[in-house]
Amino acid sequence: MVEISRFAPAAFPRLARVPGVSAATASCAFKSGDQRDLLLVALRPGTAVAGVFTQSTVTSAAVQSSKRSVRGGRARALVVHSGNANALTGRHGKVLVERMCQTVGDSLGCPPDEVLMAATGIIGQRVTDEQLLGRLPDLAGDLGEVDWEQAVEAIRTTDTFSKGSTRAFTVGDRQVSVSGIAKGAGMIAPDMATMLCFLFTDAAVEPDELQRLLTYANARSFRRITVDGDESTSDTMLAFATAHTDLAAGGDRDAALGQLREALAEVAFDLAMQVVKDGEGISKLIEVTVRGARTEGDAFAMSKAIAESPLVKTAVAGGHANWGRIAMAIGKTHRPVDQDRLSVWLGPHQVVVDGDQNDELDLDALAAYMKSDSIAIAADVAMGHESSTVWTCDLTHQYIDINAYYMT
Amino acid sequence: MVEISRFAPAAFPRLARVPGVSAATASCAFKSGDQRDLLLVALRPGTAVAGVFTQSTVTSAAVQSSKRSVRGGRARALVVHSGNANALTGRHGKVLVERMCQTVGDSLGCPPDEVLMAATGIIGQRVTDEQLLGRLPDLAGDLGEVDWEQAVEAIRTTDTFSKGSTRAFTVGDRQVSVSGIAKGAGMIAPDMATMLCFLFTDAAVEPDELQRLLTYANARSFRRITVDGDESTSDTMLAFATAHTDLAAGGDRDAALGQLREALAEVAFDLAMQVVKDGEGISKLIEVTVRGARTEGDAFAMSKAIAESPLVKTAVAGGHANWGRIAMAIGKTHRPVDQDRLSVWLGPHQVVVDGDQNDELDLDALAAYMKSDSIAIAADVAMGHESSTVWTCDLTHQYIDINAYYMT
Repeated sequence: MVEISRFAPAAFPRLARVPGVSAATASCAFKSGDQRDLLLVALRPGTAVAGVFTQSTVTSAAVQSSKRSVRGGRARALVVHSGNANALTGRHGKVLVERMCQTVGDSLGCPPDEVLMAATGIIGQRVTDEQLLGRLPDLAGDLGEVDWEQAVEAIRTTDTFSKGSTRAFTVGDRQVSVSGIAKGAGMIAPDMATMLCFLFTDAAVEPDELQRLLTYANARSFRRITVDGDESTSDTMLAFATAHTDLAAGGDRDAALGQLREALAEVAFDLAMQVVKDGEGISKLIEVTVRGARTEGDAFAMSKAIAESPLVKTAVAGGHANWGRIAMAIGKTHRPVDQDRLSVWLGPHQVVVDGDQNDELDLDALAAYMKSDSIAIAADVAMGHESSTVWTCDLTHQYIDINAYYMT
Repeated sequence: MVEISRFAPAAFPRLARVPGVSAATASCAFKSGDQRDLLLVALRPGTAVAGVFTQSTVTSAAVQSSKRSVRGGRARALVVHSGNANALTGRHGKVLVERMCQTVGDSLGCPPDEVLMAATGIIGQRVTDEQLLGRLPDLAGDLGEVDWEQAVEAIRTTDTFSKGSTRAFTVGDRQVSVSGIAKGAGMIAPDMATMLCFLFTDAAVEPDELQRLLTYANARSFRRITVDGDESTSDTMLAFATAHTDLAAGGDRDAALGQLREALAEVAFDLAMQVVKDGEGISKLIEVTVRGARTEGDAFAMSKAIAESPLVKTAVAGGHANWGRIAMAIGKTHRPVDQDRLSVWLGPHQVVVDGDQNDELDLDALAAYMKSDSIAIAADVAMGHESSTVWTCDLTHQYIDINAYYMT
C-alpha cells in the first residue's frame, strides 16, 4: 500500500463556516467499499462563480459543461464525483452530464446551467447512469451544514491525506470567511490524480471581480506546482461567493476587496502546497527559483524545466548535489542564458560561480544539506531581472509503483 | 548492477572498413579501472565534415568548439572522451579544449580548427589538464586500422551494449562504405548518458552536400527517439566523408548521392534504435504514431508528448492498456484535436472509437498484447492528414536506480 506522505499535517484543519453554503455526500461505488465519492454543494441564490480549467485540448464532459456555466456568472450548486472522470466517454458522457445538471436543477429549483460539475478518476471508462442519477434527488434532501472533512473525502482519489485551508478577515464588525478544499497528488496528473480545488466565501462580489481574484490566486498557487508535467483532462478550480456579507460594510470596499484577494490567494497557495506535499511517491519537497532572467516567462519556463526534469528529480531522491543536471534543465528550455556568468545554489551553498564549480564549496556541508527533507534549488542566469519560483517533489520508486502497479 | 538491455544484439556487428579513417584509443582514468575513455580518429586530407548539435542554450566546451570547426567544412581529426563532459567548467574548460585541438593539430600537422571535439559524462566537474593533454601525442603515434568495437568502448558510459551499424553500396566497380558508432542510453539525457554519433564514409562529397545528408538522416533517426525528454549539453552527431571514392565513378553521380543519403539515413536510424533499445531502465520498447494531424509539427508534438509522458510510460511498464493516459498526453500539447472523432489503437486493437471506448474490444486479447516486449501506440486526431512516429521506452524502477542511486 501507499504510505501517507511524510509531509501530511497531523490533522485536518478546522475550516471556517461559510454562510450560504450547504453540502451532502454519498457513495456511488466508484471507489471501493462504501467510501464517499459524490459531493453535492448547494449555494444560496445570487452566488457568483468563477473558474479556471485545464488548458488541455482533450477535456472531460464535466469541464466542458462547467466552462459554459461559468460564463453565466451565477451558481446554485456544485456536483463532484471521484473515481471515474467521465472523460473520453463520447456522447454518452455529455448526455449524462446534461441529465445530472437537469436533475439537480429540478431538485433545487434552479436552471440546469447554474449547476457546476467536476469529476476526477480514471479516464476512458463509461459511467453507468444509475450510479449517479439515482443518488442525486436523495442527496438534495440531505443537504445541511458543511462537514468539510467529509466533503474532501468525497473528492479525493490517490491523495494520501485530505486537503483543506481557511482564512478570515473583518469588514467593519463582520467577519468574511474563505474556506477551500482540494484534491490532487500530481498537479496535473490525470489518472485518479487530477487536481480539483473549490474555494467558498460569503463575500458579495460580482462574477467578473471574482474571476480576476481567482486568476490572481491561481497564478500564485496551482500554476506554480508540478509533479510529473502531465496535464489532466479534468483540472478544475472554482470559486463561489455567496453574497452574504457586504464588502462595503467597513466603509472602504476597495480595501476589503484587497483583503479578499489575499485571503483567496493564501488559501489557494496553502492548498497547492498541500497537493505538492502529497505528490505521488514524494520523499523530498523541492523549491526551484530562477532569477536574472530576461522575462518572467523565461524564468517560469526554466524553473518548470528544472522542476520537471526526471534527472534532477532522481538526483534529489538519491541525495546527490548534481548541479550539472540543473544547468542542463535550464539549457533545454532554449531560453537565453549567459552560461559564462551562470550561478547555481543548493540551499545556502553556491555550487556554480560564473558557469564553473565554486572552488570554495564545502562539500561535506553540502552533502549534509542534500539529506534534508526540503531542498531549495536556485539559479541566476545573468540575462536580466525577472524571477520565478515553482514547487515540486522528487521522483522515486513509489511514483512508479503507484502508476504502474497499484493501478487497477 | 545494471543488467544488459533485453534488446541488446547477440554480438557487436562487423563494420565495413572506411578508407581514409584510422584510430587509436587509450584510458585517461575518467572511467574506473583501465577502461578505454579516449578516442582519437585521424582523417585523410580533404575530408569533409558536417554536424548536428544539441539545441540547448547551455553547451559543453567541446560542442562550442566543434560548432565553429564544422563551419570550415574540413576535418583531419576527431577527439572524444567519456566519463567527464567538460561542461559547466567555465573558462578552464574552454582553454583545455583549445589546447587539445592545438596538441592534436601539432601531432598530425593540421590546423587546430580541423580537429573536431566531443565529450560525454558528468557535467560540472573539472578535468585535470594532464589527464587529456598528456595522452594525445602518444595516441597520435598509435594510429592504425580502426577497431570499431574498441572505438565504441572509448565513447560509451551508461550504455549496456556497444552500438555500431554499417551499410555499403557500389558505384560502378567500386564499393562505398558507411560505418557509424553511437553512444547513449537516454536520447537526450545529460549525465553519463549523452548521445554521441559519428558516421564515416569514403565517398567524395562537399561539406554542404554532407550537411544536407546528415540533417536528412538526423530528422529520420535521433530526432525521433526520446528516453526522458532531458536534453544534453553535449549531444553531437558528426559525419565525415574522406573523399576516397568518387561518386561519379558509375556515371550517374546524383543517383549515387541518393544511395549515399539512404545509406547514411539507414545507419543513423539503426544506431538511434539501438540507443532507444538501451534506454535507461527499459523493459519495453514503445513506438508511437499520431495520424490525422493538421500539420507535421502537431503530429510530432503529440507523438513526443505521448512518448515522454511518465504516466503513459509507467502504464506500459505495468502492462496496463490505459488509453485515457494516451488521450491526456495528446491534449496536454494544446494542439488541435477533434476529441469526438478521436481514435486510439494499442497494437492491432482499436481501443477508442469517436472519443469513446470501443464496445467491440476484446479485453483478453488486449491484455495479452500488453505483455509484449514491444508496444505500438497509435492515435488519429481527425484534424487533417499529417503523421509522425517516435520511439521510446517505458519508465521503470531501474531508471530511478541508475539516476538516483548508482550515480557517483
